[in-house]
Amino acid sequence: MRSQFESQLKDLNVKLLKMGAMVQEIIEVSVQALAKQDLETAKTICVMDDEIDELELQIENECMRLLALQQPMAKDLRVIGTIMKIITDLERMGDHAVNIAKVTLEIGNEPLIKPLIDIPRMARLSEKMVNKSLDSFMKADIQLAEEVAHDDEAVDQIYEAIYTEIIEMMIEDPKVVKQATNLLFVGRYLERIADHATNIGERVIYMVTGERIEIN
Amino acid sequence: MRSQFESQLKDLNVKLLKMGAMVQEIIEVSVQALAKQDLETAKTICVMDDEIDELELQIENECMRLLALQQPMAKDLRVIGTIMKIITDLERMGDHAVNIAKVTLEIGNEPLIKPLIDIPRMARLSEKMVNKSLDSFMKADIQLAEEVAHDDEAVDQIYEAIYTEIIEMMIEDPKVVKQATNLLFVGRYLERIADHATNIGERVIYMVTGERIEIN
Repeated sequence: MRSQFESQLKDLNVKLLKMGAMVQEIIEVSVQALAKQDLETAKTICVMDDEIDELELQIENECMRLLALQQPMAKDLRVIGTIMKIITDLERMGDHAVNIAKVTLEIGNEPLIKPLIDIPRMARLSEKMVNKSLDSFMKADIQLAEEVAHDDEAVDQIYEAIYTEIIEMMIEDPKVVKQATNLLFVGRYLERIADHATNIGERVIYMVTGERIEIN
Repeated sequence: MRSQFESQLKDLNVKLLKMGAMVQEIIEVSVQALAKQDLETAKTICVMDDEIDELELQIENECMRLLALQQPMAKDLRVIGTIMKIITDLERMGDHAVNIAKVTLEIGNEPLIKPLIDIPRMARLSEKMVNKSLDSFMKADIQLAEEVAHDDEAVDQIYEAIYTEIIEMMIEDPKVVKQATNLLFVGRYLERIADHATNIGERVIYMVTGERIEIN
């Protein structure tokens, strides 16, 4: 019984890592499509997101079955509860990538009002945070989980810089207001994605220590 | 065993309704504080949100215990899975109310650039959606759940109107850019709150029919 539980849990972890990889990819692809104004790619983001949603549902169902059939012990309960929370955060990240794709389609072929440097940087940092947060879960490593919150501060700082820059651009030139607002939203979506990774880190800490903290 | 399960489930439902009421209140209070520029009240929103987070954790733990100890049947599994998803959506609504309070504090005592009519309207609609979505869960009523998605369209329309209005204000008068952006964010937070209520409706439909749909 016990070894069956562990083998099913291992299977769940594999799926969770797969979901994490898909989420990192959707963040990457959605921001690249924006930077390159690649509208065709932007249109495929929805399909990628549907696959993420599908996998979330699959993992969730397996968690529920595992809980109901195997009567796991307290520690296992916490692990499965953590997985169920992690997939919700991952799924929401996918939604934000879809929002980024929508902005890309709205901007269309209109020239970008600024070279996109900070936004792709935020994206890369967020992807690393997703990776690290899942790693902290797999290893039950509190220190890694705390690092995610630390990385989140860097993302917040970039967002603040983008915010200030874009507000100034709008004040100087009313013609840019619409696109500037859209780019500001993208910054906000990425900032939220990083927050979701931080949530995952916090859940891992809760799973390991039983203490609920909010690092931010 | 069975009746014990049902009594625990009933207890869970009471807590869920309490959480829903707290979320409706935090939406109401956060938007009223913004409209009245009541900074003292805005400062209390964090405390209200902490209480929501606490209750979420409590409900989640009880769900997990119930799953593990009672070996519920397939239908009950789905109900508990739904509760676990609902509380995540409710919790996120609380976070958005905190974001609204942050905007209120940032605007401070600076005169509002426009009378707030649409934003409180969005708030009231969202609160009703929260109420209706929980009602649809309690009654396992698909029709009610679908109505929530319908209400969401009204919220989206108001958001679109706010968006257009605020973009125009920014184009006409660069001095309003900063506050206008903040108010646009508030519109977005409320739009997201309504989306979370829609998520709840979708989950109820999934719980009842076993079919996963996205209404929007």
